[in-house]
Amino acid sequence: MSLTQQQDDKEFTRSPSHFADRITADGSSPWPVEAGRYRLVVSRACPWAGRALIVRRLLGLEDAISVGVVDPIQDERSWRFTLDADDRDPVLGIRFLSEAYAKAEPDYDGGVSVPAIVDVPSGRLVTNDYQRITLDLSTEWTAHHRPGAPDLYPERLRDEIDAVNAEVFRDVNNGVYMAGFSRDQEAYEGHVHRLFERLDALSERLEDRRYLVGDTITEADIRLFVTLVRFDAVYHGHFKCNRRKLTELPVLWAYARDLFQTPGFGDTVDFDHIKRHYYYVHHEINPARIVAVGPDPRGWLTPHGREELGGRPFGDGTPPGPVPAAERVPDLG
Amino acid sequence: MSLTQQQDDKEFTRSPSHFADRITADGSSPWPVEAGRYRLVVSRACPWAGRALIVRRLLGLEDAISVGVVDPIQDERSWRFTLDADDRDPVLGIRFLSEAYAKAEPDYDGGVSVPAIVDVPSGRLVTNDYQRITLDLSTEWTAHHRPGAPDLYPERLRDEIDAVNAEVFRDVNNGVYMAGFSRDQEAYEGHVHRLFERLDALSERLEDRRYLVGDTITEADIRLFVTLVRFDAVYHGHFKCNRRKLTELPVLWAYARDLFQTPGFGDTVDFDHIKRHYYYVHHEINPARIVAVGPDPRGWLTPHGREELGGRPFGDGTPPGPVPAAERVPDLG
Repeated sequence: MSLTQQQDDKEFTRSPSHFADRITADGSSPWPVEAGRYRLVVSRACPWAGRALIVRRLLGLEDAISVGVVDPIQDERSWRFTLDADDRDPVLGIRFLSEAYAKAEPDYDGGVSVPAIVDVPSGRLVTNDYQRITLDLSTEWTAHHRPGAPDLYPERLRDEIDAVNAEVFRDVNNGVYMAGFSRDQEAYEGHVHRLFERLDALSERLEDRRYLVGDTITEADIRLFVTLVRFDAVYHGHFKCNRRKLTELPVLWAYARDLFQTPGFGDTVDFDHIKRHYYYVHHEINPARIVAVGPDPRGWLTPHGREELGGRPFGDGTPPGPVPAAERVPDLG
Repeated sequence: MSLTQQQDDKEFTRSPSHFADRITADGSSPWPVEAGRYRLVVSRACPWAGRALIVRRLLGLEDAISVGVVDPIQDERSWRFTLDADDRDPVLGIRFLSEAYAKAEPDYDGGVSVPAIVDVPSGRLVTNDYQRITLDLSTEWTAHHRPGAPDLYPERLRDEIDAVNAEVFRDVNNGVYMAGFSRDQEAYEGHVHRLFERLDALSERLEDRRYLVGDTITEADIRLFVTLVRFDAVYHGHFKCNRRKLTELPVLWAYARDLFQTPGFGDTVDFDHIKRHYYYVHHEINPARIVAVGPDPRGWLTPHGREELGGRPFGDGTPPGPVPAAERVPDLG
């Protein structure tokens, strides 16, 4: 996400995704599932993009859908490919993600957000619908899933997953932003209160079960994970969600470490990108743009003991293989 | 303290106290020790003033030196008596502490800081020398100490106390400000590094001894305490000293709780004043002036187990009696 975030006088509101085309397997949209045709553009800083990175890894879609990673720090033209040679995405040939937006809609003057899926032949943005992208990777791209890919959105559990996701979105994923961008003390305190009430409820739910829904990893775990993994690094201090650190919530901290250490989760996370993005870009919260040293991330690698709860992380499937060399993130400290 | 703080382009520097007269027992200064003559003006937010509040309590000087408490939030005229009826200090009759500064030096245009000792008959500021005030309470005001008052600055230990104080001042008391007000990433990281190196060294020192110097409470403990008690409430997040919380440094956290629960320490602490001051006044760090909810302060009341290390908190003396009713701070949550 990013420039889709807007503020009115007091409260933060998140704009709906403007480009909501879908890529489908059954010919029901102009965008057919096709290996090699689309490029997923992400920031490793962004939790909404983080979901897509994890799902792509878990499903083994690396060869079918390539990935472009933007600089964690946007400039006035938003997300840019300054991590690549000549500051251009090597596949799309563009310097700014906004160029793909302009190809899709020349008069568009809204926000530029990640995750974004771009049609490589035309260079046009297909979708920035972060709520839909991961579900479609699970359900429309099945022909290209790796052998042993898990079912992250099993039909019989969708109602339950959707219900959990809705609460987690409101109080946790988006709740941290609502707290962090609030300009009103009472509203801020309300958001923090609801956030920690929800974290407490999730702790209770996860105390004797390894995953949120069913006994395998699902979309629900991915959506909660992307916020938890950023919690102590940025939300606790920068967004003032400081009633407790994640490390002070024993059940959730063990749950999050369990996922982090599962192939496909921690191997997508870049704490340097996360911290530099939040502390640098939100100068209205952090005018001097000092990036907090933050806690030592090596705690993420400590034993979690959650195997004792049973559960089958990948159901009847298997973990994903190693990360492609070009996509590796730095080791922790 | 406060407006004695200044910033150049990159680094925070703390101005020396401008008014450094001393109140003495031997007639060596124009200001004689005299019960009822002086008023100590403090902010309960301020760690430098916090030292004086604690020493005054431990020594039982409440009847000899009255105290005025300013609003934790300064306005453009600095510290003000808006907690009192008619917004005036009931003893000095002034609305702003700066009025006492002006009586001492009509042309003074420097900062207005607490702690400040004011001569009640003339209304003049005597001293804002926070490094000296507490030592003089211990050494010059002995005639007015309560029976059983401890010796907080014993002659035979002064060199050691001074040496500890110098390191604690540079790396901890002032170090958190250096980190928090830094506008340069590298300088900031250096301050945080030195702060936590010092906290680690202090943890080691305090692992098997109850107090910093000797086996009783001294000035050294008081000076370390005032920073530790503010650590998780404000320095960890607001000043980005977030490598660890105090609660994640087991020796120092137990040491700080031990002191907090000792009469004369925790009973001077007002977390509401502390949090509102830091988060509100430093708008250059926190433009929206949202006061972080912070961690639950009731942890300060949990058992610390430090009695096992021995030590004699008050030496041959006794703890101070209850806080005078007019000076009570709110209970923790």
